[in-house]
Amino acid sequence: MSLTQYYTATTLDGFIADPDNSLDWLFTRNQERGGPLNYADFIAGVGALAMGSTTYAWILDHEFKGKDPSEWKWPYDVPCWVFTHRKLQVVPDAKIEFASGDVAPVHAEMVRAAGERNVWIVGGGDLVGQFADAGLLDEVIVYIAPVTFGAGAPLLPRRLELRLEKLARNVDFAAARYSVVREPR
Amino acid sequence: MSLTQYYTATTLDGFIADPDNSLDWLFTRNQERGGPLNYADFIAGVGALAMGSTTYAWILDHEFKGKDPSEWKWPYDVPCWVFTHRKLQVVPDAKIEFASGDVAPVHAEMVRAAGERNVWIVGGGDLVGQFADAGLLDEVIVYIAPVTFGAGAPLLPRRLELRLEKLARNVDFAAARYSVVREPR
Repeated sequence: MSLTQYYTATTLDGFIADPDNSLDWLFTRNQERGGPLNYADFIAGVGALAMGSTTYAWILDHEFKGKDPSEWKWPYDVPCWVFTHRKLQVVPDAKIEFASGDVAPVHAEMVRAAGERNVWIVGGGDLVGQFADAGLLDEVIVYIAPVTFGAGAPLLPRRLELRLEKLARNVDFAAARYSVVREPR
Repeated sequence: MSLTQYYTATTLDGFIADPDNSLDWLFTRNQERGGPLNYADFIAGVGALAMGSTTYAWILDHEFKGKDPSEWKWPYDVPCWVFTHRKLQVVPDAKIEFASGDVAPVHAEMVRAAGERNVWIVGGGDLVGQFADAGLLDEVIVYIAPVTFGAGAPLLPRRLELRLEKLARNVDFAAARYSVVREPR
């Protein structure tokens, strides 16, 4: 059965982006690419993904900046839903759908598209929170970077009960997989 | 040599207290008392401690409420400095000093009092941040509870580089010890 997963890097104090939207704090850290809970294994299990407009704009800004649109290479092969209330630039030949409003019907579409594979909510935190609010989030998988920010974009701005399923070190990172506990404690 | 340590529990999203100042989220979780990075081993190494006024008021409120002052038992044997700008209730027969302003001279006193043992900054996050600002914080040791809040008292409201020294599971918790990296990256 398909799981709906939030896979992300975070600081120890729960921020997924710094106030400048830089990811230097993340990419300067060491990890083993084949280590526990690694991205390659994770993405191999993903059949559909969703992201918010800020995440989408960040990818466009960082992957495509200074390149001709004909050279743009969207990083995902599986269908992607971008939640947005604004008109965003379209990437040619990428499997992207724009969506807005209630996440539940879009989630049903994503699950159908994913087939046997999982649904990845890339971020940001509030979009993940909307899936959690709807009872649709199954797992939170975090790579905790050895840094605190004190401010930035929050990991998951909700009250949510979790259960630690796996904990392992990957060089500089503490990697953890949690299942979402749906019953109130 | 004496280390200055921040030992605390935190949510996965970096809060040390919820918006209601309840610690139910913490005390309802399971841990092995003799497990990795446990409190008993930690406190045995502590020779002096410091806390902010909110933490102090919380202890008074939760340990002493409804009891006659003659029955109050302050939980620490080692000397404690309470940083406060307001007049706070005094606990009889407890080794407590009130302090305010620059943390550096107080830290020197604490290190002297601690002897061979360590200095524990109990919290809150901003007081710990003041020690970090002064270059006086050596370690951050966290018990990460499997919960997110989305709001509350922040773990450590500073930009701080850390190095993961130890990571281990203690039942429901991810326990991690970090050293503070003082050189700018």
